[in-house]
Amino acid sequence: MAYLLGLDYGTLSARGILLDIGTGKIAGEEVFEYPHGVIEDSRAFSRAATQAPGEGDQSAALEEELRLQAPSEGDQSAALEEELRLQAPEDYLQALQIIPRRLMEHTGIPKEEILAVGVDVTASTLLPVDQNWQPLSFDSAFRNRPHAWCKLWKSHSAQDEADHITGVLNENSDLLDYYGGKVSSEWTVPKMLETLRKDPEIYRTADAFIEAGDWICYLLGGVKAVSACGAGYKAFWMKPDEARIQKGLQDPSGYPSKKLLTAIDPAFEDLLQTKLSYPVLPLGTVCGHVGPSAARLTGLMEGTAVCPYIVDAHAALPGSGLSGVGELLLILGTSACSVICSDKYLPVQGICGSVYGGILTGLYGYEAGQPSVGDMFAWFAGSLCGKTLEEEAKRLGESIHTVLCRKAERIKPGQSGLMALDWWSGNRSILDDSNLRGCIFGLSQQTKPEEIYRALLEAAAYGLRTIAENYERFGIEIKSITASGTVATKNPLFMQILSDVMNRDITVSGQPQPSAMGAALQGARALGLTVKKAEEQRIVYHPDEQASEIYARLYRLYHELYELMGRREAGILHELGAISKETGRLS
Amino acid sequence: MAYLLGLDYGTLSARGILLDIGTGKIAGEEVFEYPHGVIEDSRAFSRAATQAPGEGDQSAALEEELRLQAPSEGDQSAALEEELRLQAPEDYLQALQIIPRRLMEHTGIPKEEILAVGVDVTASTLLPVDQNWQPLSFDSAFRNRPHAWCKLWKSHSAQDEADHITGVLNENSDLLDYYGGKVSSEWTVPKMLETLRKDPEIYRTADAFIEAGDWICYLLGGVKAVSACGAGYKAFWMKPDEARIQKGLQDPSGYPSKKLLTAIDPAFEDLLQTKLSYPVLPLGTVCGHVGPSAARLTGLMEGTAVCPYIVDAHAALPGSGLSGVGELLLILGTSACSVICSDKYLPVQGICGSVYGGILTGLYGYEAGQPSVGDMFAWFAGSLCGKTLEEEAKRLGESIHTVLCRKAERIKPGQSGLMALDWWSGNRSILDDSNLRGCIFGLSQQTKPEEIYRALLEAAAYGLRTIAENYERFGIEIKSITASGTVATKNPLFMQILSDVMNRDITVSGQPQPSAMGAALQGARALGLTVKKAEEQRIVYHPDEQASEIYARLYRLYHELYELMGRREAGILHELGAISKETGRLS
Repeated sequence: MAYLLGLDYGTLSARGILLDIGTGKIAGEEVFEYPHGVIEDSRAFSRAATQAPGEGDQSAALEEELRLQAPSEGDQSAALEEELRLQAPEDYLQALQIIPRRLMEHTGIPKEEILAVGVDVTASTLLPVDQNWQPLSFDSAFRNRPHAWCKLWKSHSAQDEADHITGVLNENSDLLDYYGGKVSSEWTVPKMLETLRKDPEIYRTADAFIEAGDWICYLLGGVKAVSACGAGYKAFWMKPDEARIQKGLQDPSGYPSKKLLTAIDPAFEDLLQTKLSYPVLPLGTVCGHVGPSAARLTGLMEGTAVCPYIVDAHAALPGSGLSGVGELLLILGTSACSVICSDKYLPVQGICGSVYGGILTGLYGYEAGQPSVGDMFAWFAGSLCGKTLEEEAKRLGESIHTVLCRKAERIKPGQSGLMALDWWSGNRSILDDSNLRGCIFGLSQQTKPEEIYRALLEAAAYGLRTIAENYERFGIEIKSITASGTVATKNPLFMQILSDVMNRDITVSGQPQPSAMGAALQGARALGLTVKKAEEQRIVYHPDEQASEIYARLYRLYHELYELMGRREAGILHELGAISKETGRLS
Repeated sequence: MAYLLGLDYGTLSARGILLDIGTGKIAGEEVFEYPHGVIEDSRAFSRAATQAPGEGDQSAALEEELRLQAPSEGDQSAALEEELRLQAPEDYLQALQIIPRRLMEHTGIPKEEILAVGVDVTASTLLPVDQNWQPLSFDSAFRNRPHAWCKLWKSHSAQDEADHITGVLNENSDLLDYYGGKVSSEWTVPKMLETLRKDPEIYRTADAFIEAGDWICYLLGGVKAVSACGAGYKAFWMKPDEARIQKGLQDPSGYPSKKLLTAIDPAFEDLLQTKLSYPVLPLGTVCGHVGPSAARLTGLMEGTAVCPYIVDAHAALPGSGLSGVGELLLILGTSACSVICSDKYLPVQGICGSVYGGILTGLYGYEAGQPSVGDMFAWFAGSLCGKTLEEEAKRLGESIHTVLCRKAERIKPGQSGLMALDWWSGNRSILDDSNLRGCIFGLSQQTKPEEIYRALLEAAAYGLRTIAENYERFGIEIKSITASGTVATKNPLFMQILSDVMNRDITVSGQPQPSAMGAALQGARALGLTVKKAEEQRIVYHPDEQASEIYARLYRLYHELYELMGRREAGILHELGAISKETGRLS
């Protein structure tokens, strides 16, 4: 028997699966919640910063491995600024220590039968490391400094830096044609520039800024290299192109030219020789093998092949059984990603990136997304629906979501007179503006909680349609739509609304762990193995003709509001945000 | 000892007070809840229509008095259309039968000591009557027809008619200069035109369309006449002006000319000779005296003077002790009115009307308003704040409002990043558009219920500032601001926010029943009596400098949104409403 290990590092937990190559089925699954979760305020940061990284429930072996130091006494941790979201890299390490061992214990599968490890991780989730690729936050001298820690993908504190870089790149290059026209505060270079500006000592001390995914692959495989998937989508790396190199736009390494980087900031002059100097490895390759210390850490066999990490949303595409051109995949969880592959390069505006081979070999992979989908539904269910609903849920032993869905299902499209803009955490695609905020229109004395809930579901669906239409507008044909993720599997009302709003069939993948599956499949791809395709229970949602007609009209109104609040008059939401910041939203 | 009876007919109940002329104090107070309340859906209408008006808890004497008939068996009541809000005139009658008697019983004051009765009533609360001024809804032949009933002021089903009349009047006359530029669906002529269009038989059968206030005064005083206050603010009546009569704009009666009325609808050709043919009596006069049947009905002494009714919001101005030019009064309850007097006629846009002598003798009285203020706060507290808050309220034995206010008080101006448009029941001033709807902007994953609640309080305050600034823009000087009503007396957080938003001192009147007091004072005015001024506990709110500065900035944003959603792009909220109507909001 032969297995592939897939490790899926999400926002709140890591998950591991063992994929049986002979059956295509998952032989075992383990989850590990990050002890630190997301560090999003000064109190949580202070608590984390006053503990050594090995303190608590880690084994002595691990502490020794890392030569961990306790933070100096009396050090005051710095305040965490608004919109900065950190993670503790020791949590990723601990997942490596726990998940593979538990998988082998619980399935009885011996380490010898695990042929390769594939990893998928959120991105850009960026950490500064020293020459030994040890995170700077592990150094007691820097432990109380937020910029020494790992900046999670959804950290939006580098918006000013992102805006600056957008300006410079648009003035001096064609680069943003490949990245939807605008730089996101979630990406690598804004996050680095933010550290340069806000904590220059950390910037100078760092040997490199690497993705959490690259760090995990280094811990496993022992090779200092970075994945082309992360570098491509998040750090402006592209397959070297002789014409662009000649024009002085691209460095032979694939990153932007020194001239462009220097235009962003003079301190970036030597970036290619320093912080971004490590080799870029394509997906579908082996980036290293488990060595003695990684074997001690994980329990895996020495010599096991390790593959470059793939961004979590992208992993879900092969993980959902998709393999071709024009198969749109919607990953619907707390946030949402819309990913698709094409055999053509098309400069699509308003997306997160288009990378050759970034998802599937030989194809251009396109990514777009919404930062708050399930999060927005949960916000409403958690704090805004009244006692009556909560009591009904309790009485029936159901979740608030279930009760809300049952009531919302009875409301006809358009009936409530409500409409929302789904920007609770800003807009990623197609406006790429983390300062935008959610809006609700059409409220009256008769408005009921379930009507607002349904309006939020509809708004998320309109947002997904906006992204799909944007792909099509720029020439990417959509042949089919597949959905995966918790919202896709757990909220049939949302899926029906989505099908009605899009006026298309939508298939919900039967694969419960598409990202972890996609990660495991990286190993098969690198080793040239064929995994048997297991049968899956798929659900297809078909659009209702009458509902689709109403939604076509409502969608036009959504777009008027989208333009009004997001583009032409964006000033209003921005100024509300600026005043809120000034008067201390989080103080 | 001498007393004045003030009867205050509100939306849900009627209230009576006995005012002691010698002390200026209230000697007794009684409240009567209307048995039918507001009839706002088909089910409630059907229930009401299948009962004879005297059925239930009224006395035999009353039934006999009215020669009431039971509705014919098997009659099917018509469905109530959306936005139509009815009241049962028998409720007003029952209040007359109950309140004066209870007042006399409970205070021991004999009927001989009550010198006059003044009445204030909501308007335009319009009913069709036969030649004996009996409501058509009392006739079993019409009892199952909604348009035979009393249309409450907040009935908004005549919006199409109001828009039509706005167009005709603006094309052919200067009339709307006196009425803020736009006809409201709440006014008399749209309500009449609606009946003409939707139930022409009722229109033809009606001898007159009169205000509930006029009907109550007729029941008391026995004279068929209408109050200049109601006719002036709600039915386009103005003090006859020779120049306008010459130009063919005004009829010598004071109503619009026959030519103008015919332009609205050919069927209105004989309106002045038929439905609007009764004399118009100014405030400050006696319109009749209690006769034998009214004495039997009410228990009052035959011969007691009766005064023309005054609109409830207007009554609150003298009732709050105001008597001069430039004293702005805000009546803050479920809805809000902003009333002020000036010695000049100024064509103020966006208000509900400007009537000479309509509030105080010898002054032009101006009225503007917001249809949902306390209603909007109650909507949120009632159905949208979560379990945690409700549990806290229960534990502390407080109302949800109290808990929300305490939490909202800790939020600094601007801090939440939220802003709302206070149009839960449309906008009366200064846009006069009942199809507009409420909006909330700036929502995020961190938004808390108390932040939304505060945003609603702020939105109502911005709406009040908009109205005050509009008065000033058209030349009406505001010397002082006084507030009365339940929101003014019960929500100190709102009052502080209002003072901060307006950046002015605001005095909360110590008079708990300003409208009833204003009604009672009509009697003193008519009989030339001087009422002693009682001492009152007034509370003055002073603006906080720092808060006012932030609010000045936020108010500019409110205005951008106001223009954006209410004017330039009004199409969006209107189309959402149209789709909702089409897909059956209330079905």
